[in-house]
Amino acid sequence: MFKDATTEEINAVMQDAWNAFHVYRKFSLQQRADFMRAIAFELEECGDLLIQTAMKETNLPEARLRNERSRTIYQLESYALACEKGDWLEARIDTAIPDKNPPKPDIRKMLVPMGPVVVFGSSNFPFAYSTAGGDTASAFAAGCPVIVKAHPAHPQTSAIVAEAILHAADKCKMPKGIFAHVNGISFEVGKTLVMHPYTRAVGFTGSYTGGKQLFDWANQRKEPIPFFAEMGSVNPVFLLPEKLKSSVTEIATLYAGSVTLGVGQFCTNPGLIIGIESGALQAFIHDLGKAIQSITPGTMLHQGIADAFVTKREEALMQPDVHLVAESAAAPLEKQGQPTIATVDGKTFLANPVLHKEVFGPYSLVVRCADKNEMIKVAKYLEGQLTATVMATGADINQNDELMEAIKNICGRLVLNGVPTGVEVCLSMHHGGPFPATTDARFTSVGADAIKRFARPIAFQNWPDEFLPDELKNDNPLGIWRTVNSELRK
Amino acid sequence: MFKDATTEEINAVMQDAWNAFHVYRKFSLQQRADFMRAIAFELEECGDLLIQTAMKETNLPEARLRNERSRTIYQLESYALACEKGDWLEARIDTAIPDKNPPKPDIRKMLVPMGPVVVFGSSNFPFAYSTAGGDTASAFAAGCPVIVKAHPAHPQTSAIVAEAILHAADKCKMPKGIFAHVNGISFEVGKTLVMHPYTRAVGFTGSYTGGKQLFDWANQRKEPIPFFAEMGSVNPVFLLPEKLKSSVTEIATLYAGSVTLGVGQFCTNPGLIIGIESGALQAFIHDLGKAIQSITPGTMLHQGIADAFVTKREEALMQPDVHLVAESAAAPLEKQGQPTIATVDGKTFLANPVLHKEVFGPYSLVVRCADKNEMIKVAKYLEGQLTATVMATGADINQNDELMEAIKNICGRLVLNGVPTGVEVCLSMHHGGPFPATTDARFTSVGADAIKRFARPIAFQNWPDEFLPDELKNDNPLGIWRTVNSELRK
Repeated sequence: MFKDATTEEINAVMQDAWNAFHVYRKFSLQQRADFMRAIAFELEECGDLLIQTAMKETNLPEARLRNERSRTIYQLESYALACEKGDWLEARIDTAIPDKNPPKPDIRKMLVPMGPVVVFGSSNFPFAYSTAGGDTASAFAAGCPVIVKAHPAHPQTSAIVAEAILHAADKCKMPKGIFAHVNGISFEVGKTLVMHPYTRAVGFTGSYTGGKQLFDWANQRKEPIPFFAEMGSVNPVFLLPEKLKSSVTEIATLYAGSVTLGVGQFCTNPGLIIGIESGALQAFIHDLGKAIQSITPGTMLHQGIADAFVTKREEALMQPDVHLVAESAAAPLEKQGQPTIATVDGKTFLANPVLHKEVFGPYSLVVRCADKNEMIKVAKYLEGQLTATVMATGADINQNDELMEAIKNICGRLVLNGVPTGVEVCLSMHHGGPFPATTDARFTSVGADAIKRFARPIAFQNWPDEFLPDELKNDNPLGIWRTVNSELRK
Repeated sequence: MFKDATTEEINAVMQDAWNAFHVYRKFSLQQRADFMRAIAFELEECGDLLIQTAMKETNLPEARLRNERSRTIYQLESYALACEKGDWLEARIDTAIPDKNPPKPDIRKMLVPMGPVVVFGSSNFPFAYSTAGGDTASAFAAGCPVIVKAHPAHPQTSAIVAEAILHAADKCKMPKGIFAHVNGISFEVGKTLVMHPYTRAVGFTGSYTGGKQLFDWANQRKEPIPFFAEMGSVNPVFLLPEKLKSSVTEIATLYAGSVTLGVGQFCTNPGLIIGIESGALQAFIHDLGKAIQSITPGTMLHQGIADAFVTKREEALMQPDVHLVAESAAAPLEKQGQPTIATVDGKTFLANPVLHKEVFGPYSLVVRCADKNEMIKVAKYLEGQLTATVMATGADINQNDELMEAIKNICGRLVLNGVPTGVEVCLSMHHGGPFPATTDARFTSVGADAIKRFARPIAFQNWPDEFLPDELKNDNPLGIWRTVNSELRK
């Protein structure tokens, strides 16, 4: 039904986006925010049709999809608010000092949009990290046109959302080319989009394989471009002794829920739980296993993901000295993911890189370290992560400084006594992390700071007030925060 | 005298840097700033020996080197001040909302250092963009240890500055490994440093050839790392008709000075001057040529740069339809660069990519466009630039909207009625620009925002006050600006 876009079609889309860029970037922050709010409105207007289409294409339950649409609307509205407020513009003004030797000129700097942004959405968030998701909202706020490569797992859902965006664009009198929706199952379509000379930045949410390949292409261009990929992680959880001892059952119950939430299909799913060999750890493993047995398998996003889960789960369980702790008592039906807990000792874990890889789905591996030093080793040896979690008392934290430092080193978000699943949309959120969690640890894909991925500074030297953008004019007509002669003021 | 570092030596240096990182990153902003001020003090203490050594190695005149040392000291001191103030940390706090459904946790975010930073200094700024230059200052402010690859054109100068840094480190009780100085003429040393697993970011100032090769290596690592290279540009100057007509001689005099300043060895040297065919443009070319004839050739940084200037100048002058306008009346002596102005018509320029490339030295090409549309074409066709300059009256600006937009699109700094040479060190400065001016248009290498190249966010979720860094504690003990529940406050 959805045919891959041809190179000619992509060229036409990119030409339109390039033309639109020159118009859209001159639109005020207010106009951009209004457009984003109009998209939010249209998403709501899509009504049940959108939910039902997504249910069919993703197997996600209705309640979850309704929540996700609300979240997507909230993202659009909250980034719109941030866009208007303009804190993200990093406006800086240094006024002239004519009698300095040599004279110091007037210089004013702010962020401006980079140009057309190509967005690759994820399969597990058909709304919030797809067609009108966080990357699209960030790019529109920054002043960039967006070209979405429809996710082949939910093309119909994506098409409905694309229609909603185009409808909003129409209502807001946006230039032709402000948004385009490109279909493509083959890698070739993605490559053509990333390599196109008019593409100025890319946002990606998905697997390491896809993200890394596109990242390499982005860097191999004649003019390399910023490429931000969020590629998931195993999100290690460190169980510290005092805390574990005092709350074995609570932690087991909490994590049985977190590991299986949404059939384990979150990029913040805790795929690794690390403890120190002890009676308490044995009791925790026992309780976690018991809890997992009673959790029913759920249907996964699509056949490909279900098959990959079976394969990767089997591969992990087949590794020497990995033991199955428990799986759900109910056998999985077609396309279902079976909740599974396995365990391995620390030494074996350290020696086997297969065990460090994400098994996307309701699976978690409990690593039993011989002692504190082995736990530190594991923390130091792990790859970059979106999140790390520490279950600890105050005494645990005070007695484990080296461990805490090692953990901080590998993650983007550090959770204390909670679960990594559940990513709050707010300015303080960091949804990012060292490679391979993302391709650039300096940026986030959740929260309004995500806008900065698609904007670059420009400095105006010696320009009179009348020709400066409103954001930098003397009397601050937009009332934004600016750093004037090194002091933040409004 | 200076032997290339072996792989074993580099491994040892990187291990020390990695160890130092874990200590230094816990040092307070105040301690970092004190260290930077101590380096500034030691640079001054190096006295005449440093100036004389640099004079011998770089052929730069004494006054220039004294000024450059002052600038380097100012950079260290002003980034130290910025480091202490903490605006760059982007501290964000969103407090918990326990009765939200699901409950919103307390989340707090700030920038933290990435790890050891490798710095490749430039030959043309032996102090300000070399061993204790802007990249080193930025990394120390961010909380990162620094490994400088000594520039082979001024190894002795670099060694003296390295000693000064180590002396300051000693005085400030910095951990062993906070700074290292590595010699290396071969590309292999640079490659080993960039590819080393403990290297977490790179700052580079130099040529496109060197920068691009190192950038590719940084991206080919198992774990790609942020690599910021400032690789120079041709810095186009657009002469708009009304302005040119009214100020032919003034502009010619201004630009004869800018083109030959420091024997043209600035990355902001105006290598391209673009006008529209007219009597005024002819008069300008005549006056510029006349002024150039009277400027004496100067000694260039080293034999390699002087040879490259001769070759590239010849190559440019040999291109079809390029005409020599004027060169200095005095013939150049050994290692001297001969001030040169050439001219070409717009159509030929557009068709010949050789003419778009930088001729590093006192050379500029005047492009004569047939009309306004051809000037727009030239602006659209140019590669990314550190700077672009517009010589224009208010009427010129008002009548050339498409041109102004095209120019904004390609540059990091836009100068009005001035010269691009002279880069003020202040927060509003943007010394960066789209590729190939730099490898990432989102960052600057001058001004305290340069610190952000070497820092990444981390979010703390649900951590009690006592375990949070001071920057994020409830009562804001450091008195820094933070965004609390979406509002900036102190």
